[in-house]
Amino acid sequence: MAFPVRTCALVGRFADARVAESVATLVPHLAAAGVTVLVHSQAALGPAPVTRVAEEDFGLRADLVIAVGGDGTLLHAARLVARHGVPLLGVNRGRVGFLTDVMPQDMLASVDLALRGELSSDERPLLAARLVCAGGKVAEALALNDVVMQKHDTGRTLEFETRVNGAYVNTHDGDGIIIASATGSTAYALSCGGPILEPHLDALVIAPICAHILSDRPIVVSGRSVVEVTLLERPDTQAHVTCDGMVLGALVPGGRLQIRTAAERVTLLHPPGQDYYKLLRSKLHWGRGSFER
Amino acid sequence: MAFPVRTCALVGRFADARVAESVATLVPHLAAAGVTVLVHSQAALGPAPVTRVAEEDFGLRADLVIAVGGDGTLLHAARLVARHGVPLLGVNRGRVGFLTDVMPQDMLASVDLALRGELSSDERPLLAARLVCAGGKVAEALALNDVVMQKHDTGRTLEFETRVNGAYVNTHDGDGIIIASATGSTAYALSCGGPILEPHLDALVIAPICAHILSDRPIVVSGRSVVEVTLLERPDTQAHVTCDGMVLGALVPGGRLQIRTAAERVTLLHPPGQDYYKLLRSKLHWGRGSFER
Amino acid sequence: MAFPVRTCALVGRFADARVAESVATLVPHLAAAGVTVLVHSQAALGPAPVTRVAEEDFGLRADLVIAVGGDGTLLHAARLVARHGVPLLGVNRGRVGFLTDVMPQDMLASVDLALRGELSSDERPLLAARLVCAGGKVAEALALNDVVMQKHDTGRTLEFETRVNGAYVNTHDGDGIIIASATGSTAYALSCGGPILEPHLDALVIAPICAHILSDRPIVVSGRSVVEVTLLERPDTQAHVTCDGMVLGALVPGGRLQIRTAAERVTLLHPPGQDYYKLLRSKLHWGRGSFER
Amino acid sequence: MAFPVRTCALVGRFADARVAESVATLVPHLAAAGVTVLVHSQAALGPAPVTRVAEEDFGLRADLVIAVGGDGTLLHAARLVARHGVPLLGVNRGRVGFLTDVMPQDMLASVDLALRGELSSDERPLLAARLVCAGGKVAEALALNDVVMQKHDTGRTLEFETRVNGAYVNTHDGDGIIIASATGSTAYALSCGGPILEPHLDALVIAPICAHILSDRPIVVSGRSVVEVTLLERPDTQAHVTCDGMVLGALVPGGRLQIRTAAERVTLLHPPGQDYYKLLRSKLHWGRGSFER
Repeated sequence: MAFPVRTCALVGRFADARVAESVATLVPHLAAAGVTVLVHSQAALGPAPVTRVAEEDFGLRADLVIAVGGDGTLLHAARLVARHGVPLLGVNRGRVGFLTDVMPQDMLASVDLALRGELSSDERPLLAARLVCAGGKVAEALALNDVVMQKHDTGRTLEFETRVNGAYVNTHDGDGIIIASATGSTAYALSCGGPILEPHLDALVIAPICAHILSDRPIVVSGRSVVEVTLLERPDTQAHVTCDGMVLGALVPGGRLQIRTAAERVTLLHPPGQDYYKLLRSKLHWGRGSFER
Repeated sequence: MAFPVRTCALVGRFADARVAESVATLVPHLAAAGVTVLVHSQAALGPAPVTRVAEEDFGLRADLVIAVGGDGTLLHAARLVARHGVPLLGVNRGRVGFLTDVMPQDMLASVDLALRGELSSDERPLLAARLVCAGGKVAEALALNDVVMQKHDTGRTLEFETRVNGAYVNTHDGDGIIIASATGSTAYALSCGGPILEPHLDALVIAPICAHILSDRPIVVSGRSVVEVTLLERPDTQAHVTCDGMVLGALVPGGRLQIRTAAERVTLLHPPGQDYYKLLRSKLHWGRGSFER
Repeated sequence: MAFPVRTCALVGRFADARVAESVATLVPHLAAAGVTVLVHSQAALGPAPVTRVAEEDFGLRADLVIAVGGDGTLLHAARLVARHGVPLLGVNRGRVGFLTDVMPQDMLASVDLALRGELSSDERPLLAARLVCAGGKVAEALALNDVVMQKHDTGRTLEFETRVNGAYVNTHDGDGIIIASATGSTAYALSCGGPILEPHLDALVIAPICAHILSDRPIVVSGRSVVEVTLLERPDTQAHVTCDGMVLGALVPGGRLQIRTAAERVTLLHPPGQDYYKLLRSKLHWGRGSFER
Repeated sequence: MAFPVRTCALVGRFADARVAESVATLVPHLAAAGVTVLVHSQAALGPAPVTRVAEEDFGLRADLVIAVGGDGTLLHAARLVARHGVPLLGVNRGRVGFLTDVMPQDMLASVDLALRGELSSDERPLLAARLVCAGGKVAEALALNDVVMQKHDTGRTLEFETRVNGAYVNTHDGDGIIIASATGSTAYALSCGGPILEPHLDALVIAPICAHILSDRPIVVSGRSVVEVTLLERPDTQAHVTCDGMVLGALVPGGRLQIRTAAERVTLLHPPGQDYYKLLRSKLHWGRGSFER
């Protein structure tokens, strides 16, 4: 992270009223601090002291990226900066997120700390997905939360095999499978019965989606593993692969999907007093309103 | 059920080798018994003493329908005969199904009992789904197992509301929702954390699919309930409704999906000694291979 | 329910400060309304215009019972009045309960409505448990929520069989089993993976506790069923049976536990605007604080 | 492991007929190979060429320990040798175990390989539990699978707090909590909704038992963590702590339970062709008998 911060990129769905409100406060604040503000060239933003550039250039030009919105916005921002080591700050739109942990009312104070390099930073590994099509064509992408192989269209379930470091694990029958990082363990994988992983645990969760076999349970493997998914022939089978919710491509019988921990990492900035378990307690309603037997 | 059985329709994917093998045995056996055998006009069947008619006519012309294949085949046959009271016998292709409970080796003996009206019969209620589009257009279908509203395409999760008999139940966030009959409780709903319902319990299961909120658990309501699902506005939301896996149509914000128990019922025939819990023990590997702590 | 209400019994842990506070308000309010107030002969209550009688006499002498505390207190009160048809009103101590649904601030208004017979009433079936020891000795009790057979002492798991109406269901291996009424489906059974049952559904939940076999899932059967549990011989096996948390006795190999819906019912009174799904939404944090993917 | 193996200890419930049968074959086989066979001084064994010593001496005197029985027997053997580095071979009594992975029919061949030092060996970390009573008294024990804090007697649920490396995690309400090693993840923790951990993953599972709060889900933390459990004051609360099922003592309000990975490890010997995922597939019925929708 370069200090002092001279250039800051803003990422968000600016058309959303709550996001727009935060951005309207944020832009003059940054400008007053002498910081150049970058936004997407197509950003739905009125006249403002900003510089419009292609999002793909944020990684090269910005010293700091601020994502305003939900976790989905931060995941998008993470892809933009993954290869450039630019730190990310996530401001949520109202409800605290697992990744966007700055509350709106604390935004300016947290941004000021970020500009001075006084926020604590937190490196999170990314997942690298490699999708090899039957014809040999390869598609690749990074993901902070998860890589998901899932039935496409509302159709029949999928039958597929998993391997870890080349060793055959299981033949699954169900809606698909999630390979999540520790960071992503509290996202989609949690809805599918996966465990919560400490964010810095060097491990991956392999969580089947709506598995037919009730004992087909989530597996936690070392973060240094290579997980491979292949699809069995079945009539009408259609499977799509997504990285953090973005479509990477179709998995077909004969092709294969490989997931491993990437060399790239994302640097998240956290507000003072941030505490992972406090975040969990808040998000998961732990310890509140328990019902009495 | 009309006796003696003079006309029997066969339903199955005849192109499947295991199905074809059973059918090759079955057709001459029925013919030798003086029974007219109906098959789909497009059935992939070689020269055989069969009468080809449109599937839609099975309900009117057959005294008995034999479904050869998996539970999916029987669900298809059930739709063909639902309004006609023609009994159904399900012959599985190798692995016992929840619905196709005649083993291949017992096929001829069970068929003979069926022809003489000596199999026990078992009436199962159907679900009636009514999908009202925003423009007022209505699509309707019956289902033996379940009606499913699910995200279409590999996209964002759905936000939707449920009502039971007009009373607001919950606002859900997830991949969709299943409304299953007691019969369907051991199908998709079981993979989504739903309970097993006795097949003759007059009740419905409402089971969310991969719900975000971990306390958004399956609810069991009276079989006389009307369940209604409506979709909230969210960007990129696409939802499809299926009945026993067949697409009924798209649910969009402003439209609604209503599910209730239908007036129609399906008559299933069962082989001697059939026992629901025995079937469960076999399908779910109960009491076998338990691991020791 | 006899009107006007002349005698009202109060049930609660009066030693608890929050309960005492409610009772201190309630007693003079009832006395001023000309109602005789009964309390347990050993009740930890200072000088007050109350009549002390044995709890066992509440059913015979009271026209109304008010349970102040959590759901556990109401379950206790339900046992006292089950055979007498005396209605029950539950006032919770702060957090809303599934059964004690009158909030402290609404207590006096709800009590006034109860005295005038203007609260809606709601009949809930009870479960009847019958525990037959190896020697033939029989113990019986009623339960509003559930009958639980569970390993006693921190020891080895139990191996046991279940039957429904005499039909063998399964041989289980685990910590025990819960047979819950629809009312009790949101209590212990919910923590063990059971579904939520509409409170008036005529059904029972059979939910294994920490089952070894991962496919040993909760089953919902008709409320007219007889469920039987027997224990297999295993070294060091110890099992206890509880009804709504109160010990009924020990189940030993050779003995058997039978559960069915009792003839007795409990009449619960509910405050105006009570809505079962609203209660669920509040207790289970539905629709609030969902996390974003 | 000392070679050649001169002394071998046998551990098992010799009174069990199946165990006795294996032992009757094993003892002369070992004797013929010139190996001294040690058994517990009180072992229920007829005349045989064995040396009876206190079990506590197995660790010092044996070069190899063979556990004949279920996983419980191997856990017992593991405690005997934990501090001595003596390798363990587990022979199961019929059903394959997660730890006793030598099938009876392969016993002699595997034992011969073990005597020649030709079996693959596999080091598994142990857990160290430290139970501090309110008065300051300390009890300590090792566990290969898990340390469990659980309600004692069939009583009220427990309210307790967890901390990881001193950081407050959650206040739980339920039947107790399991801290399992990767090895123990497929034992009790799996029955409580925990994930499967690769056996060599340096991690612990913290899995609540029948938690009231439905979002109180299993957490996976680094194997270098210290997990602490403390009990809150609640009337009638009784909690017991067990290590691999053996009672360590009572946890009371004011006391605390600490679990960390021990310095000691256990060396397990595995038969040729052993494969962890093959074991899982066999134990969990993966890929077999899937039901069709």
